[in-house]
Amino acid sequence: MHETSKRYIQQRKSIGFVPTMGALHKGHLSLFRRARDENDIVVASIFVNPIQFGPNEDYDRYPRDIEGDIAKLERESVDVLFLPDVKSIYPATFKTFVYVTDLSDKLCGAFRPNHFRGVTTVVNKLFNVVKPHKAYFGQKDYQQYLIIKRMVEDLNIDIEIILCPTIREEDGLAMSSRNSYLSSEERIAAKIIYKTLLEATNLIRSNLQPSDIKQRMLQMLLEENHVKEVQYAGIYDPESLDELDEIKRQCLVAIAIKIGETRLIDNFLVDV
Amino acid sequence: MHETSKRYIQQRKSIGFVPTMGALHKGHLSLFRRARDENDIVVASIFVNPIQFGPNEDYDRYPRDIEGDIAKLERESVDVLFLPDVKSIYPATFKTFVYVTDLSDKLCGAFRPNHFRGVTTVVNKLFNVVKPHKAYFGQKDYQQYLIIKRMVEDLNIDIEIILCPTIREEDGLAMSSRNSYLSSEERIAAKIIYKTLLEATNLIRSNLQPSDIKQRMLQMLLEENHVKEVQYAGIYDPESLDELDEIKRQCLVAIAIKIGETRLIDNFLVDV
Repeated sequence: MHETSKRYIQQRKSIGFVPTMGALHKGHLSLFRRARDENDIVVASIFVNPIQFGPNEDYDRYPRDIEGDIAKLERESVDVLFLPDVKSIYPATFKTFVYVTDLSDKLCGAFRPNHFRGVTTVVNKLFNVVKPHKAYFGQKDYQQYLIIKRMVEDLNIDIEIILCPTIREEDGLAMSSRNSYLSSEERIAAKIIYKTLLEATNLIRSNLQPSDIKQRMLQMLLEENHVKEVQYAGIYDPESLDELDEIKRQCLVAIAIKIGETRLIDNFLVDV
Repeated sequence: MHETSKRYIQQRKSIGFVPTMGALHKGHLSLFRRARDENDIVVASIFVNPIQFGPNEDYDRYPRDIEGDIAKLERESVDVLFLPDVKSIYPATFKTFVYVTDLSDKLCGAFRPNHFRGVTTVVNKLFNVVKPHKAYFGQKDYQQYLIIKRMVEDLNIDIEIILCPTIREEDGLAMSSRNSYLSSEERIAAKIIYKTLLEATNLIRSNLQPSDIKQRMLQMLLEENHVKEVQYAGIYDPESLDELDEIKRQCLVAIAIKIGETRLIDNFLVDV
């Protein structure tokens, strides 16, 4: 991959990069299309990154479908698939981590210790190997995007980080490889996330206070029987991820819940 | 600097890089000469990196001589000096660190918490800006070299890390910007470090056990009146930095002491 990318760079071709964990869905495809539009060469990686999963999380059962994924990459005219194995990414001698303080401990980070350290470490490695000019991330994982953007700025990495809109099912559920874990009843219940984000948006536009909006969000989510746990729900500053006392400019409405055993997240950026 | 380096890379010129904290001495000059021999372009950086100093260390009084340094760089035909200020390296929003676990906590790391985290973070940033093909480090700071080599391998950074021999004063004292802190009496006393390393080398070659050699080293160092503290002295594995019970292959003999208020380090790599 090093050599492939260096050859493209010597040929003055621009490289667009979409790092993924595979089990590709329409959300990923939208990233490939955006990268296709904006670059000479599109590189995708598929790597289920063990160090971003906690010990009781779903690393082992995370969906894998490499045959199906390759067919999709071909259909989208992705030029290069980088498909490293775990041992080549994390040899026995591996000891180095990249982490973004503060932002990595908030929201999802409070419930997934070391998750974002795993993300920034592997994305840093992938960036060094693929050497892209632009890299594409979905808004569904807004905190991940924000942390990667912070890493890139802080470490003077010469890559443009591009946030792409969340792609949704017809009923509004954000596309996610983890949606495949849901039973058909849970799948119906999962609509509550999108409905709650829509309601919160309306309440923001009606100038309700964030604390009142949060109460309404919690109420809606907890009224849904399949919601086992609300990890967070509320209105946040889109740069600091701090919970807002008052809404002055663009804000992040974000939710993380468990439906049965499946953890789902989603968010809107709302302009006021 | 980004643009300068990209231009050289487009011209297929190789870049050799010597990161320094300035107050340049003959040790640095030997790195510039090695880089000059092996590359089309030589880049030096001068940046006294605040985050690698502890709160009670010598950041404020670290020797600075930018005029003298520039004269030396010109004499050595260094092509580019990268001289960033603290605010551009660490803007108020800065939150990202690179660290090498395990190796950063041993030897000097045990006495300088966060020191190597500061080193790996700034060197990672400088590498991303300067984009060198090769980077040069002196053996006097062997642990620093080892940690940077580990970082480069672990993060798939496409740079060759080159270890260059320690340059010494006539009486054997390793060149160091911090030698300027020594009074004339302390300067004479500082010879004990080199003498102890020589004695340890002889004892290794006489097949003495590491624990006995360590005792002899401590005895020699502590007999010198100006030695205020021996932080470590002994025989270590040059890859893991663990103290050795027996010597089977190349080993690292390393010393860190305080002479008065001045902390000095030195080491030999000894083949057996």
